[in-house]
Amino acid sequence: MNEAPHARPRGPPEFGARFRTELRDLFIWRRDVRHFQSTPIPEELLSRLLEVACLAPSVGLSEPWRFVIVEDAGRRAAIRACFEACNKDALRAQSEDRASLYARLKLAGLDDAPCHIAAFADDGTQQGHRLGRHTMPETIAYSTVAAIHSLWLAARAEGIGLGWVSILDPARVAAILDVPAAWKLVGYLCLGYPAEEGDSPLLERLGWEQRRHSAGVVIRR
Amino acid sequence: MNEAPHARPRGPPEFGARFRTELRDLFIWRRDVRHFQSTPIPEELLSRLLEVACLAPSVGLSEPWRFVIVEDAGRRAAIRACFEACNKDALRAQSEDRASLYARLKLAGLDDAPCHIAAFADDGTQQGHRLGRHTMPETIAYSTVAAIHSLWLAARAEGIGLGWVSILDPARVAAILDVPAAWKLVGYLCLGYPAEEGDSPLLERLGWEQRRHSAGVVIRR
Repeated sequence: MNEAPHARPRGPPEFGARFRTELRDLFIWRRDVRHFQSTPIPEELLSRLLEVACLAPSVGLSEPWRFVIVEDAGRRAAIRACFEACNKDALRAQSEDRASLYARLKLAGLDDAPCHIAAFADDGTQQGHRLGRHTMPETIAYSTVAAIHSLWLAARAEGIGLGWVSILDPARVAAILDVPAAWKLVGYLCLGYPAEEGDSPLLERLGWEQRRHSAGVVIRR
Repeated sequence: MNEAPHARPRGPPEFGARFRTELRDLFIWRRDVRHFQSTPIPEELLSRLLEVACLAPSVGLSEPWRFVIVEDAGRRAAIRACFEACNKDALRAQSEDRASLYARLKLAGLDDAPCHIAAFADDGTQQGHRLGRHTMPETIAYSTVAAIHSLWLAARAEGIGLGWVSILDPARVAAILDVPAAWKLVGYLCLGYPAEEGDSPLLERLGWEQRRHSAGVVIRR
């Protein structure tokens, strides 16, 4: 694992049944993690994960993903305050019984996770010459989502958990992190070694919602 | 590979160095495919890939992904016409020399791909009780992006290529496919066995754009 992620094998790899079984396990055991151990992620490993994220597909090869590793204690506290404010609003939008369950959900993992990464999409990038963005400009943000998802899967394969926090005000987060105006927040990510493992979603285990089968989501035309 | 994707191993899997190397190869060799063989994808395999897609993360466990397998020749022709119209507009938005290169890019794969899937996000779903969607409602679409990316990776591991077409008018595609009003188009996907393999993006090989290194996209705050 010392080669850079861009190191190239000689020919197309042939993925076998064993790899596909493990890949399926990776999808099954990925999880949105909220409870972390305090052990930090080694810098070399974090760099490697971010390099894998940059192999994601992007519209017109625009590679618009921008990652901000949030280390400053003051900025982290401001992000936490932003979450608290938004969470309060979200709580009001829930019915009373659900609000009580909601309040018990530890949604953020912001306090425990040793590593925080804010993932942005650079809406102003000229890379890719705006190919494919004419009718669907949102594909710039979608490219960053694919990068986050790549990071998530690669992290899980290294035993690292990731939690995606979306209960935040994107403009406020951008201001706290002092990023260029064209950068649009896509997700705020908490990373670390998970405090527990599971093959079912935390929200399912907590009784918030259940997974459904795929049959109902596929139609033919 | 006969078990359903939801079949569960007894304990958390331990992913080894060999798996991680192959996973990295999967990211490197994924590709956005535009040239396909005509060989159809077996139905059982397609079902399996869609089941894997449904293991993706989703905001508040809302699972908003909706897949439309487009088979009807008339509808396919209407999608193609929609692409042609949007492509013409996009062409006008490019400078003259780039427009000439753009015109030479075979962007769609719509003619060759044996399998077409339109992927939507159901913005109206109550599953997940709107958790996490209060300040960032776009996370519903992002969940479908994660499902598409899962499908893409699982497909590549089975030797199937996928191309994401974004030069389309989302409202027109929804009308052509006669889907519920709350379904929002996220991506139109062409799938099939690829006519060629490669470890570098087609747009790079065609001289449209080059990949950059990850160093410039990571900052610290």
